[in-house]
Amino acid sequence: MNLKEKKLNSSTIYDGKIIKVELDEVELPDGRHSKRECVRHSGGAAALFVKDGQIALVRQFRYLYGEALYEIPAGKLNYGEDPEVAAMRELEEETGYRAAGSEHLIDIYPTPGYTDEIIHIYNVDKAAFVGQKLDEGEFLNCSFVPAGQVLSMIESGEIKDAKTICAVYAYFIRKAHA
Amino acid sequence: MNLKEKKLNSSTIYDGKIIKVELDEVELPDGRHSKRECVRHSGGAAALFVKDGQIALVRQFRYLYGEALYEIPAGKLNYGEDPEVAAMRELEEETGYRAAGSEHLIDIYPTPGYTDEIIHIYNVDKAAFVGQKLDEGEFLNCSFVPAGQVLSMIESGEIKDAKTICAVYAYFIRKAHA
Repeated sequence: MNLKEKKLNSSTIYDGKIIKVELDEVELPDGRHSKRECVRHSGGAAALFVKDGQIALVRQFRYLYGEALYEIPAGKLNYGEDPEVAAMRELEEETGYRAAGSEHLIDIYPTPGYTDEIIHIYNVDKAAFVGQKLDEGEFLNCSFVPAGQVLSMIESGEIKDAKTICAVYAYFIRKAHA
Repeated sequence: MNLKEKKLNSSTIYDGKIIKVELDEVELPDGRHSKRECVRHSGGAAALFVKDGQIALVRQFRYLYGEALYEIPAGKLNYGEDPEVAAMRELEEETGYRAAGSEHLIDIYPTPGYTDEIIHIYNVDKAAFVGQKLDEGEFLNCSFVPAGQVLSMIESGEIKDAKTICAVYAYFIRKAHA
């Protein structure tokens, strides 16, 4: 079955700091027309840093949910930026650790119905402490949590962030198969 | 450390079919003001349906990525709708299978920097075929893929959708610990 949708035209509704919102008109596979609400994003980069069996988690207030969430260190790509470079920058800024190297772990599409964001996730096992340096207006706590406890926090629903769950699970499933 | 951000005011930029976009002004923990770009969403519901060791996957063109993605059956909540009811409705519409029961598997926050969406995911092991009934303008293919192959498709990057990865991994990790 041909599933493809063809773009007919696009109008920009909002062009912000984090997102750009567009309303596109598309032609469906059966020839009819429909609208697509599009949140455009430059992409995200994140680092799963495991140190002596402990995982680096940052706790940050997320305005959209009205609560502080546990997440792995992450941030937004600058346009055209290499995702691995961005992930290592965010790791260093948020935890104070500079990676000695990294491995690609997994890329995820967080919610494909309305955004084009791709979150690129890397694994870091070796890093040296050089000091945390948060962006202006960025407030977060960093802690190292034993890996088994992180799995329990996912199981209990205390960790709900998708990139963090995908990263931790991917890491453990690969370790189990290695 | 107090991490909370306080809402000062909010303006609606766009009120669409899938998303509502708001620009809020907030007070940061240090008293300064900042803006928050907010994509409001009614929430998602999804079903991991496992039948004879095979997982139901739907393949659907996702306009934002310009490609057809493999995902577990899912859809948007109607406002105030019970997520489990919505997940079972989407399972039946997209695969043709009516669940004989379901269990909560995991809830995820797909990308907390700019959306308030929560995706509620349920596990179904028993269901009866009653016939696929897609929404008007919905085009997708449904197939049953052996569980081991689904894990390989995540590993190879052929499956990239976050809710699908979280659901499949959560299912296997729980089975391994059961």
